[in-house]
Amino acid sequence: MQCRVRVFAPASVSNLGPGFDVLGLAIERPGDVVEAEFRDSPGVEIAAVTGDGGLLPADPGRNVAGVAAASLLQHLALSGIAAERLGGARPPTGVRLWVHKQMPLASGLGGSAASSVAGALAVNELYGRPLAKDALLPHALAGEQVAAGTVHADNVAPSLLGGIKAIRGYTPLEVLDLPVPPALRLVVVHPHTEVQTSYARRLVREHSFPIEIAVANLGNMAGLVAALHRGDLELLGRSLEDRLAEPLRIGLIPGAAAVKLAARAAGALGCSISGSGPSMFAVTGDDETAERVAAAMRIAFAEEAGLESEAFTGPVNVHGARRIP
Amino acid sequence: MQCRVRVFAPASVSNLGPGFDVLGLAIERPGDVVEAEFRDSPGVEIAAVTGDGGLLPADPGRNVAGVAAASLLQHLALSGIAAERLGGARPPTGVRLWVHKQMPLASGLGGSAASSVAGALAVNELYGRPLAKDALLPHALAGEQVAAGTVHADNVAPSLLGGIKAIRGYTPLEVLDLPVPPALRLVVVHPHTEVQTSYARRLVREHSFPIEIAVANLGNMAGLVAALHRGDLELLGRSLEDRLAEPLRIGLIPGAAAVKLAARAAGALGCSISGSGPSMFAVTGDDETAERVAAAMRIAFAEEAGLESEAFTGPVNVHGARRIP
Repeated sequence: MQCRVRVFAPASVSNLGPGFDVLGLAIERPGDVVEAEFRDSPGVEIAAVTGDGGLLPADPGRNVAGVAAASLLQHLALSGIAAERLGGARPPTGVRLWVHKQMPLASGLGGSAASSVAGALAVNELYGRPLAKDALLPHALAGEQVAAGTVHADNVAPSLLGGIKAIRGYTPLEVLDLPVPPALRLVVVHPHTEVQTSYARRLVREHSFPIEIAVANLGNMAGLVAALHRGDLELLGRSLEDRLAEPLRIGLIPGAAAVKLAARAAGALGCSISGSGPSMFAVTGDDETAERVAAAMRIAFAEEAGLESEAFTGPVNVHGARRIP
Repeated sequence: MQCRVRVFAPASVSNLGPGFDVLGLAIERPGDVVEAEFRDSPGVEIAAVTGDGGLLPADPGRNVAGVAAASLLQHLALSGIAAERLGGARPPTGVRLWVHKQMPLASGLGGSAASSVAGALAVNELYGRPLAKDALLPHALAGEQVAAGTVHADNVAPSLLGGIKAIRGYTPLEVLDLPVPPALRLVVVHPHTEVQTSYARRLVREHSFPIEIAVANLGNMAGLVAALHRGDLELLGRSLEDRLAEPLRIGLIPGAAAVKLAARAAGALGCSISGSGPSMFAVTGDDETAERVAAAMRIAFAEEAGLESEAFTGPVNVHGARRIP
């Protein structure tokens, strides 16, 4: 019986333009790491949280990784799956977690989702993988819900499973796996400023929208899903326009309008806010353009808003969260 | 030089559940027929309108087929295309139309779109097909706009071009052709009652929507477009749910809630309102189920609301408007 495991869960870009609370994709990096080992007493203990600047709770009932881990642990205990998996021996019923935040907090990159996914995956790996990966989704969502207040799976699903996901509906939860065009490259730029997710969500939640705004996003959603199936990156770029959330949120991100223009001028096919921001993402069809767009977006943040930033470029992460050595 | 042509433009089902003003498909029947011949004086004359119970204007400036025909005629005259096509001879600059309504008015089946499409196509055929079919779209839209007051292409595009279409956006107009799963069968039932399109549109236009309603339709739009690409008719059926327009409109159609239940009970994969109603449509995966669903929907209209109805079943019309003998 293994005593200790390490897992990585990637950051994710949710909304993807028109798909508020519906679309998300995983990127290669950054991401969070969680380590887990058995402990003698039952339940979840968080031994340490690192990389969070002391901002995240170590109370396992309030830490998203802890909540996700506890949700899975309880499921395994109730179902008897863990005992069966471990050769009939009565397995330990407690785990100890180390949560290593390796991505910025409140960045719009699905940090709480990554930690939730890593918490659930770490426990599953520790117990010898009793559940298939997609069966971990409800447990990771239990963690994410602690951070977000509402259940939304558009970061958790891609962080766990990889690829580009659409949440068709929540009753019951239905996650669709959309095709990933091989040439697609993502550019994600995180400026050193914060947008409080809860405030950014409230801005949208408390608004009401005329039908033509919904129609605009519906048209772009049709375009985006068709583009992924066709592998038509130009259409994908055109379809990233968001009339629902972006107009309400873009003012929260200093320099964002200039960053969008700079991205397009540097060859991006489309550009929008990642999640509730402040990170911005763009799409391109090759690595060279992606690097050029990343540089242009960083310069725009610096020149327009005096913001330092870091950029991540690369393909969609099609594997999602995974065990690491 | 031909002296007279006849064309047929099919009815269409717009919205298709979640896709208000975005999605539409053409059906095999019913549809409208327009005949055209040259006349000596310039401009459009409407010689007769039949099948409309005397309700449609014969004034070519107010009849949708007349407006579409005039729009194309003016384009051909200005561009000189018609003269070139007809061997350099100066062609007649006037046409005379016969408009034969072969589908019910105010039925939610895209009747004004079919007449507009037929008006434009008839002129194009009369002049020896100077324009490709998709270039007729703006002219058919000019007709539709007279009836609808606003430009919306979700009936016109499928009636003209066939298949299942998504209007990605209007500035500029971008029409996406979505795949048609070969097994897909449509059931359309028209109850003998009327819903005024303008009132049904106003109900939606004057409403404002919370974000979660838009999110629900965005999820279903993603599901629907993915379903068409995958050929997954179960997913297509689940994705037909409309939270934007249907809840506001279903009360205008006596018996509609019972019709939906009856359709599902008879094996339909999904069921919603066609356009602004009162016609209802359902989808199935085979002809036999389609016939059963049609019968169940007609019985429900009769028993719940005392309404006579007629049903149309068949595959999607993938060819759209066409010349007929």
